[in-house]
Amino acid sequence: MAKGNINVSVENIFPLIKKFLYSDHEIFLRELISNGTDATSKLKHLIAIGEADTELGDAKIEVSIDKEAKTITIKDQGLGMTSDEVEKYINQIAFSGAEEFLDKYKDNEAGIIGHFGLGFYSAFMVASKVELITKSFKDAPAAHWTCDGSPEFTLVESDKADRGTEIILHIAEDSLDFLEENKIGGLLDKYNRFNQVPIKFGTKEINDPEFTPATTKDAEGKETTEAHKQITVDNIINNTAPAWTKMPADLKEEDYDNFYRELYPMQFEESLFHIHLNVDYPFNLTGILFFPKLSPSMDMQKDKIQLYQNQVFVTDNVEGIVPDFLQMLKGVIDSPDIPLNVSRSGLQADGAVKKISGYITKKVGDKLVSLFKKDRADFEKKWNDIKVIIEYGMLSEDKFFDKAKKFALYPTVANSYFTFDELLEKTKDSQTDKDGNHVVLYAANKDAQHSFIQAATEKGYEVLILDSPIISHLMQKLEGSAEKVKFTRVDADHIDNLIKKEDNVISKLSDEETTTLKPIIEAAVNSKTYTVQLEAMDSAASPFIITVPEFMRRMKEMQASGGGGGMMGMGNFPDMYNLVVNTNSPLVSDILNNKDGEAQKHLISQAFDLAKLSQNLLHGEELTNFIKRSYALIK
Amino acid sequence: MAKGNINVSVENIFPLIKKFLYSDHEIFLRELISNGTDATSKLKHLIAIGEADTELGDAKIEVSIDKEAKTITIKDQGLGMTSDEVEKYINQIAFSGAEEFLDKYKDNEAGIIGHFGLGFYSAFMVASKVELITKSFKDAPAAHWTCDGSPEFTLVESDKADRGTEIILHIAEDSLDFLEENKIGGLLDKYNRFNQVPIKFGTKEINDPEFTPATTKDAEGKETTEAHKQITVDNIINNTAPAWTKMPADLKEEDYDNFYRELYPMQFEESLFHIHLNVDYPFNLTGILFFPKLSPSMDMQKDKIQLYQNQVFVTDNVEGIVPDFLQMLKGVIDSPDIPLNVSRSGLQADGAVKKISGYITKKVGDKLVSLFKKDRADFEKKWNDIKVIIEYGMLSEDKFFDKAKKFALYPTVANSYFTFDELLEKTKDSQTDKDGNHVVLYAANKDAQHSFIQAATEKGYEVLILDSPIISHLMQKLEGSAEKVKFTRVDADHIDNLIKKEDNVISKLSDEETTTLKPIIEAAVNSKTYTVQLEAMDSAASPFIITVPEFMRRMKEMQASGGGGGMMGMGNFPDMYNLVVNTNSPLVSDILNNKDGEAQKHLISQAFDLAKLSQNLLHGEELTNFIKRSYALIK
Repeated sequence: MAKGNINVSVENIFPLIKKFLYSDHEIFLRELISNGTDATSKLKHLIAIGEADTELGDAKIEVSIDKEAKTITIKDQGLGMTSDEVEKYINQIAFSGAEEFLDKYKDNEAGIIGHFGLGFYSAFMVASKVELITKSFKDAPAAHWTCDGSPEFTLVESDKADRGTEIILHIAEDSLDFLEENKIGGLLDKYNRFNQVPIKFGTKEINDPEFTPATTKDAEGKETTEAHKQITVDNIINNTAPAWTKMPADLKEEDYDNFYRELYPMQFEESLFHIHLNVDYPFNLTGILFFPKLSPSMDMQKDKIQLYQNQVFVTDNVEGIVPDFLQMLKGVIDSPDIPLNVSRSGLQADGAVKKISGYITKKVGDKLVSLFKKDRADFEKKWNDIKVIIEYGMLSEDKFFDKAKKFALYPTVANSYFTFDELLEKTKDSQTDKDGNHVVLYAANKDAQHSFIQAATEKGYEVLILDSPIISHLMQKLEGSAEKVKFTRVDADHIDNLIKKEDNVISKLSDEETTTLKPIIEAAVNSKTYTVQLEAMDSAASPFIITVPEFMRRMKEMQASGGGGGMMGMGNFPDMYNLVVNTNSPLVSDILNNKDGEAQKHLISQAFDLAKLSQNLLHGEELTNFIKRSYALIK
Repeated sequence: MAKGNINVSVENIFPLIKKFLYSDHEIFLRELISNGTDATSKLKHLIAIGEADTELGDAKIEVSIDKEAKTITIKDQGLGMTSDEVEKYINQIAFSGAEEFLDKYKDNEAGIIGHFGLGFYSAFMVASKVELITKSFKDAPAAHWTCDGSPEFTLVESDKADRGTEIILHIAEDSLDFLEENKIGGLLDKYNRFNQVPIKFGTKEINDPEFTPATTKDAEGKETTEAHKQITVDNIINNTAPAWTKMPADLKEEDYDNFYRELYPMQFEESLFHIHLNVDYPFNLTGILFFPKLSPSMDMQKDKIQLYQNQVFVTDNVEGIVPDFLQMLKGVIDSPDIPLNVSRSGLQADGAVKKISGYITKKVGDKLVSLFKKDRADFEKKWNDIKVIIEYGMLSEDKFFDKAKKFALYPTVANSYFTFDELLEKTKDSQTDKDGNHVVLYAANKDAQHSFIQAATEKGYEVLILDSPIISHLMQKLEGSAEKVKFTRVDADHIDNLIKKEDNVISKLSDEETTTLKPIIEAAVNSKTYTVQLEAMDSAASPFIITVPEFMRRMKEMQASGGGGGMMGMGNFPDMYNLVVNTNSPLVSDILNNKDGEAQKHLISQAFDLAKLSQNLLHGEELTNFIKRSYALIK
């Protein structure tokens, strides 16, 4: 029997890194800056606990490009390495070093180490040769390490005098585009604009703040006062202390507004409100989420929630971390506890991530409750912008559904905003029918269903305006949550039938007359789409009304908007309507009594066209002909 | 100066593989099956060139689950390994072995090796212990290798008698869900349903094809004939020779239809037509693309083009590989030349991928030309389903735009389908105005613009129906490609103004009368949305017409549909209309001559409402009131 150790052949580790490890070559810069940031944080920590006898100064990281030499240099002022440490941490594959450090200090301070292990070697994704020149904060000579991507390296002494590490990347021929200032500037802005350590990238001209204007006289005695003087200063590309790293108590409303603009410079709308996340246990998470104002602009889609780890940008794909219904929010989440490089299903199974998602849902719910309580009028004003998010949450998370009962609003055509309980209380007496069903009336569109809304409000009923794309699903859920409550759209039937209070109105027409009339109207209408229904209604009501039965319409809507519910195959059903003929209307009597066949047919079709018009069902040639006939009637 | 080799510490290679290398743990199965497939193909190849003295038989790969032992076993009948080869290929990290093999045989046959290097070690993503039992086709004892994920392994002789490799995964506690048959079955179906070597997963009952019915008599002399007999056979989950691996000449239409259904079993619609891709140089690519029938079903979105490498599924994200405008197609692409694990920007920079994308565009274009030439009537029938894809392609790829001139169709309201050249030829004389502009008339909706279409067709003009979401961009491009051609929607103005043939019609009203009338109408209309314009038109034309100026409307549409073109900020502009008053209409004379202020106002508002109706602009309360007034007029 043989026993042994698996031997990883060193010839193979570089293609491995280059090809498989990172799908995106650009992240080499993030990795190297993270290393420099760690080196600076570690030094700061060692100074704080008395283990390093040096001063941090205004340590920063400097990124520079030399187009002629085809190099990019990343230079930090962190703890540096001795020659022995280079041997240990670089030559033995970087991330064993980080683990050792973490083990040593983990009781002192968690999270000091970035999650980007193996970072140093990502340099070879873009460089054909890498130099590392480093001087430790300890009293030891500086070291100069060079490697051309083969496993062979050289290590010599260097005369570098200042503390810290300098990495020189000799950019490979296939990566020369990284020598463009715009490209590197763009990457710094993407990954490092909130880096913990200041990053210098070139210089810029500013007005000298210490300049005192002096007045000079020229040869002709004319006085000139210079207003300002330009000086050259370091161009620091990052904000090392973004709002989410501060305590909520230390921030004003305006600080949140400014942070929103800092995060999304192309977003012109302000946010509606923010939620500051801050939790230490059982996981570590900070962040600020914003409810955006709805806007059709393209930027809305682009500006997503950004995920950071220790102020370094990771991704703007937060699927699985932020609950689906909150993906439309904006802002930042920073957590070292979210595993990277894990599939979505992996994320969903991860305990910490599940807790994070639950925590975010809870915090959003709590914030909405408190906003509602604090200033209901303001909340009502914002409702239209936030309702889709809330309704989607109510449908997808039962806990959120329960909490949302406190603040979810149901606006009426008269511009009142009720909670569901308030609505039921308000309409309990007036809108309960003779069978004890409590009928909630709604319209999808104030304009399109105008005549039906008018008929309902004239009876003193409340009519909701419910127009979100997923509202049919939510109605279904609400009906399931309350006894004998049913939603019905105002045009589902004549209003007297929607909320039946007593037995039928007496018909002016005899049963015989009704039996005579029905086939006459059916013949004139001549369409399978319309079911003719003769009913005795108020004589002042419209002679003809087209209604859309609730059940079929809602099933079709539910299927169209996807998700559960609805009935399979309903989407392909043709639209079906009822044509309700009011037997008590004088015009209907006129039709019945008109003995001239042509004139009778003309009366019916004009009335039918008008009924269609009020449901936006008169189109094309029918409409053109109706308009022509109507012009003739004016003259 | 020190010189040395970078030493990859072996303690670190397993967490590396588990954490970083693959984002999706499920792919361990694909990797191990690919290894088994390679081992089988290699053996077949060695036999073919006389280097292996054995018979392949009906070599298959067997996958089995043992829930009690918590193991998954993958067993092949490929070339196997000797103990020395295990030492070399497994203990030295797998993929060096593949490279060596490839080097040796690359002149003989390219692409025999899968691209999934390092595959074997992916076993440790789900297993806490892995056993490998293997017997080489060479005359050598079998070997049994065991490793528990630490770098230590054991290697002993085994009594395995049959050729091939058996891998036993002892599933780790955090991966026990992989012991579910449904889960493994689902993964086999996702990654391996077109694998080159048959895969057995369990058994199934079928009717014995060799069973001869026998008649038996029971005790009472009653005869029974058994119709069939069930037998148990291997359950082979894959089709080893899918349509795209065959030559187009060997396939019938019906084979393509069957493959479409095989690929998308949940898709009930048939495809419109297919394009068989087959190229060897300068890159290797096979595949079949289908133009789907448009359907609003959810499956349409889910059924994407699938990317394979040597018949192993890789991804259904083909961004960067298939041109954007063809992403709506369905089907399969199989190419070993597409780099995996590369970012989208990396893909776009890759020379081979660029060529592949260009090749696909060209093939699709050629196929469309040939379909159009072969059966134009059929092509016209399919146009509505394919137009969005083609129009999008014309906008985004100039080469495709040029080719599409031969087959892109422009349907008219009269159901004629013209190419652009045919259309220009047909309308050149009739639709060129007095200034030499060749005016192409179109409508977005036959119903909504009915009266305007009627007016245009009565003059003998052709009116196109152009209703794609991006059509405004395409019109812009077509106008740029032809001299003095301009598109205009039929409701952009009165038809006589859209194609001005001669000087104005004489007005019945004097200049004085016109000057008197205008402010009267403006006062009655009382809206900033409508610009009142008095024009002398045909006396039979409508008294009032509402028109939508072309330029503003198109700019707004272009901005709304995104992409280039359009004018920034136009999206927020309010809709603007012209109210064209026909001074030659008798009704307009009536209005002018009516001295009763109220009656005059009533005439104007009724005419204005009718004009609004024909542009679907009369809504809500205005519409309800109009309908009430109209009912009164009937009686």
